[in-house]
Amino acid sequence: MMNRFRARAYQLLEFPSRVDRPSWLIELLLILLIIISVIAVCLETVPDVLKVHGPFLMRVDLWITVIFTIEYATRLWAAAEAYPELPAWKARLKWAISPMALIDLVAILPFWLAFVVPIDFRLLRLLRLLRIYKLARYSPALTALFAVIREEAGTLFAALIILAILLVFAASGAWLVEREVQPEAFGSIPSAMWWALVTLTTVGYGDVVPHTVIGRLFGGLITLLGVGMAALPAGIIATGLAQHLHERRNRLCDEFREVLQDGRLDLADGRRVEALRRELGISRTAVRSIYEEVQREQPPRQCRCPKCDHVFSPPR
Amino acid sequence: MMNRFRARAYQLLEFPSRVDRPSWLIELLLILLIIISVIAVCLETVPDVLKVHGPFLMRVDLWITVIFTIEYATRLWAAAEAYPELPAWKARLKWAISPMALIDLVAILPFWLAFVVPIDFRLLRLLRLLRIYKLARYSPALTALFAVIREEAGTLFAALIILAILLVFAASGAWLVEREVQPEAFGSIPSAMWWALVTLTTVGYGDVVPHTVIGRLFGGLITLLGVGMAALPAGIIATGLAQHLHERRNRLCDEFREVLQDGRLDLADGRRVEALRRELGISRTAVRSIYEEVQREQPPRQCRCPKCDHVFSPPR
Amino acid sequence: MMNRFRARAYQLLEFPSRVDRPSWLIELLLILLIIISVIAVCLETVPDVLKVHGPFLMRVDLWITVIFTIEYATRLWAAAEAYPELPAWKARLKWAISPMALIDLVAILPFWLAFVVPIDFRLLRLLRLLRIYKLARYSPALTALFAVIREEAGTLFAALIILAILLVFAASGAWLVEREVQPEAFGSIPSAMWWALVTLTTVGYGDVVPHTVIGRLFGGLITLLGVGMAALPAGIIATGLAQHLHERRNRLCDEFREVLQDGRLDLADGRRVEALRRELGISRTAVRSIYEEVQREQPPRQCRCPKCDHVFSPPR
Amino acid sequence: MMNRFRARAYQLLEFPSRVDRPSWLIELLLILLIIISVIAVCLETVPDVLKVHGPFLMRVDLWITVIFTIEYATRLWAAAEAYPELPAWKARLKWAISPMALIDLVAILPFWLAFVVPIDFRLLRLLRLLRIYKLARYSPALTALFAVIREEAGTLFAALIILAILLVFAASGAWLVEREVQPEAFGSIPSAMWWALVTLTTVGYGDVVPHTVIGRLFGGLITLLGVGMAALPAGIIATGLAQHLHERRNRLCDEFREVLQDGRLDLADGRRVEALRRELGISRTAVRSIYEEVQREQPPRQCRCPKCDHVFSPPR
Repeated sequence: MMNRFRARAYQLLEFPSRVDRPSWLIELLLILLIIISVIAVCLETVPDVLKVHGPFLMRVDLWITVIFTIEYATRLWAAAEAYPELPAWKARLKWAISPMALIDLVAILPFWLAFVVPIDFRLLRLLRLLRIYKLARYSPALTALFAVIREEAGTLFAALIILAILLVFAASGAWLVEREVQPEAFGSIPSAMWWALVTLTTVGYGDVVPHTVIGRLFGGLITLLGVGMAALPAGIIATGLAQHLHERRNRLCDEFREVLQDGRLDLADGRRVEALRRELGISRTAVRSIYEEVQREQPPRQCRCPKCDHVFSPPR
Repeated sequence: MMNRFRARAYQLLEFPSRVDRPSWLIELLLILLIIISVIAVCLETVPDVLKVHGPFLMRVDLWITVIFTIEYATRLWAAAEAYPELPAWKARLKWAISPMALIDLVAILPFWLAFVVPIDFRLLRLLRLLRIYKLARYSPALTALFAVIREEAGTLFAALIILAILLVFAASGAWLVEREVQPEAFGSIPSAMWWALVTLTTVGYGDVVPHTVIGRLFGGLITLLGVGMAALPAGIIATGLAQHLHERRNRLCDEFREVLQDGRLDLADGRRVEALRRELGISRTAVRSIYEEVQREQPPRQCRCPKCDHVFSPPR
Repeated sequence: MMNRFRARAYQLLEFPSRVDRPSWLIELLLILLIIISVIAVCLETVPDVLKVHGPFLMRVDLWITVIFTIEYATRLWAAAEAYPELPAWKARLKWAISPMALIDLVAILPFWLAFVVPIDFRLLRLLRLLRIYKLARYSPALTALFAVIREEAGTLFAALIILAILLVFAASGAWLVEREVQPEAFGSIPSAMWWALVTLTTVGYGDVVPHTVIGRLFGGLITLLGVGMAALPAGIIATGLAQHLHERRNRLCDEFREVLQDGRLDLADGRRVEALRRELGISRTAVRSIYEEVQREQPPRQCRCPKCDHVFSPPR
Repeated sequence: MMNRFRARAYQLLEFPSRVDRPSWLIELLLILLIIISVIAVCLETVPDVLKVHGPFLMRVDLWITVIFTIEYATRLWAAAEAYPELPAWKARLKWAISPMALIDLVAILPFWLAFVVPIDFRLLRLLRLLRIYKLARYSPALTALFAVIREEAGTLFAALIILAILLVFAASGAWLVEREVQPEAFGSIPSAMWWALVTLTTVGYGDVVPHTVIGRLFGGLITLLGVGMAALPAGIIATGLAQHLHERRNRLCDEFREVLQDGRLDLADGRRVEALRRELGISRTAVRSIYEEVQREQPPRQCRCPKCDHVFSPPR
């Protein structure tokens, strides 16, 4: 009986779906609590709010922490279901060291630790802000986005090196031409870097701008380089996303080819494809177009046996 | 006779084309009236203009509302043509609850309601601004753009979560390092969020900027993250648009394959392809290149044996 | 003899290439003169420069106009070569009404007209600035870029409509929440539009910013929409460029397929491909990869005549 | 023995890999020294730091220059290994005139030259900043990024011409409408160009903004063009990167096709593919998807006739 209870808890917490109403409500509640908790921490830093509503915010925080602790304990307990082939404690350990579990832990640990060891109140508050990372669990597209960023890390890092080179170039140039007119803002290369970075990223605060004619000519060149600079990550991410999408589509294509080998798309096939579709985060209309593409594919060529002249379709 | 009149009205309002001159003029007039109406509402909020031209603007508004009301009534009446298989009232109801019809209704309803129930004058004015949404009907590419945004909604939402996480990170960091020097702008995390958001979106007003050395180092890091952040939607939309275009091209390819199966592209085929081309919003040059691609993939329909001159269709 | 002279002039002016040294020098000289001319007009508007170097700049302008007039006359005369099948005057008229010829004409006409009819001096100066459009002739990639912008005009216009809708939304919202605190900047919807546009395009001057808490919340939402807004044209142009490149590659593929039908790539074939490559503006490395792709394509399938059993490759 | 020593030095410096621990440590050390050196030069320009830590920074610089000199000498000496077919001095000369070698030389030469000929101290300092370009050697993705920028140079230059045309248009328009109200900022076209460039690149410092109503209308138009302008490089780079990736994937596809011709993927094949994968900078997951694609296109190598059990290779 305990085991059935645990299986249900596992399903409720780890595989919420709109069809399973209770799991969906729990998911919504947890998302809401994360947002309330982060807003509460932010509001606590406003002196006027702290003075008036301080005790109330603290009670809110206490209750949310308690709920998150229960959530963590339940997930840890139910994690035994995740790897049925392992002993329960090993499965739980494996879950406990996963990134999402560590984020869950960091979201509650400081609160309880503060009872044991004295922790700086300010640090405690900031650690509670880390709860916002718990949101990452609830967006499947986020996983894809992170995968793209990780895959393109090398190219993004190369863009960063280009930025570093341009930054040194811009800051030293601006220092050369502006340091006498504006010793405060361009008096040294490190201080000129503030202007250089703000310009190269096209943020353009305008708190520091070149004043001399030659400074503006040089500044104009840097704004141009800034537009090119800002174009690099956009181009890299566009390419990475397109590539990622292409690969996910290919995986779905393969799945379709396999389930279509017997010539029919029965209910079991449909469920298998639907499961993969959700996992890959591909839209239903895209799946239809993939399905049509696979169907359209040339049937296997006819083969003529050179010995007996029998004509047949060779297996793939 | 009435029915022929209704069919003509339906055609005039719902399928304007440059060949059918009257329908084209009506379309132009309606677009012009939308723009005039929105400009009039905007100008009414300028005190000097209101004082001098107030009565004139109100008359303009009255007349435009009357015309829009006639437009709405005619569309509602003619909507019976849209679903010939349904009874007229059902077809009209079906049209009346479509998004474009609701926008049309909202554009006129408040004006007439104000005669019955007292409505706040300011709210009334703002509701009239909603008329600008009527423009959406007149750009076929807009539909495609909205379809892309809807299809990529999940990924765009994931980018929003990343932004939310970075926002909390940036605001709490800036609050830590700048709150003593600039208690006004960085005195609490919520107020530091204004700077964080303005920086992460690379808008960079410059009304609030970090002043301390460590604040500028941290701010520089945030501007960098801002460039990456701004790159996400650009990349997502580029990928979505490319994907959407790919699917529309595939649909046109299929159409070509079908009409080319009999080996000839006759006038009826041409009209069918042209209708689909317009619906999908693909340019004529792109269609030509698709046509050539499809033609190239078709196997030679007739083969002449070079030895015995026998003509036959080779097996696919 | 005159005709040979004309053919040479035509070649020098219309088909400059690095191999033909004189034509290359003439091209460089003309580009240089365009740039000098535009800089001269710009400098004339600086009062101090005008006072000291005014007569010199005027002489520069006179001489450049004379050279451009000679250039125009020569191009007009040589245009007879462009359409050898037409009578000379018809070929010249055809050239004279082409966009590049009209730009050439506008670059010189005002100067000579000013001797006949009195033209406002300021207007004359601005008309001379149009000379910068003459640069368009010297970048082949520019033609491709303009083609993409023209092809995507519908989608870019749809993005503009979205911007217009957001602009009205942002301006009316900011007017509602900020007009009492900042009657100067947000006193009416038209004046609030300045802030709205500067924010939605992520330019962010910072001369006008919301001050109230609710105004900043609303402003933050608008900066978010601004990032999405700025992403639209980037995505549209990326897709358009990719599509354009795809079509140009396809044209080169077809060319390769044709010249490779006899199985060999001889010198004449090479020249034909090279000419197309330059016209399409594809890089040499890309051509190599296209060549390899075409080569790799499946050879035509073997056909077996059902009557005499002869096996042969059917023509495409 | 000397030769084996040289071969090892060559390998250590030119082909560092994580497996070869010493080479990896040397690489890390050199990267660290580059960063320290650039930071040192930047800090030297801060008067307060120079006063207190000047002698220390100079000693740091001396030692780093000595190490870089040893590095250069070793690389020059070991370069003989790079082209075994050439005599040693020719191989070294060939290396010495490569771009990376010239950057290495510029990073040390001024320091030693200063002992012989008097060089301006400030220039010397800036030349030392060039050391940051040495970083380029350590990011393989940077090479790909530069290749894309070089390949798209023509299109990027076309975008620059469009920007130049828009710049002249924006500056002359703003000069016309704003010069009387703000003679300082918009008094001449060259000074109006500062505002025009800052707006067209969407940097938007806000130090100069239009004040008149007509100026703001015109300014709004320019901000719109600015968004379109900024979209061009992003689109160009996205297309270039996608194209580049496509070509690299094709090269890997070819490699797979070749090694799979014998039907098996043995260890030697795996190493060959892995070497190419690293050179092209493609991720492992992408390689797997390419591998599967290639495998799928291979025709069945052996066919068994279902009637007579004869086994044969079908013709392609």
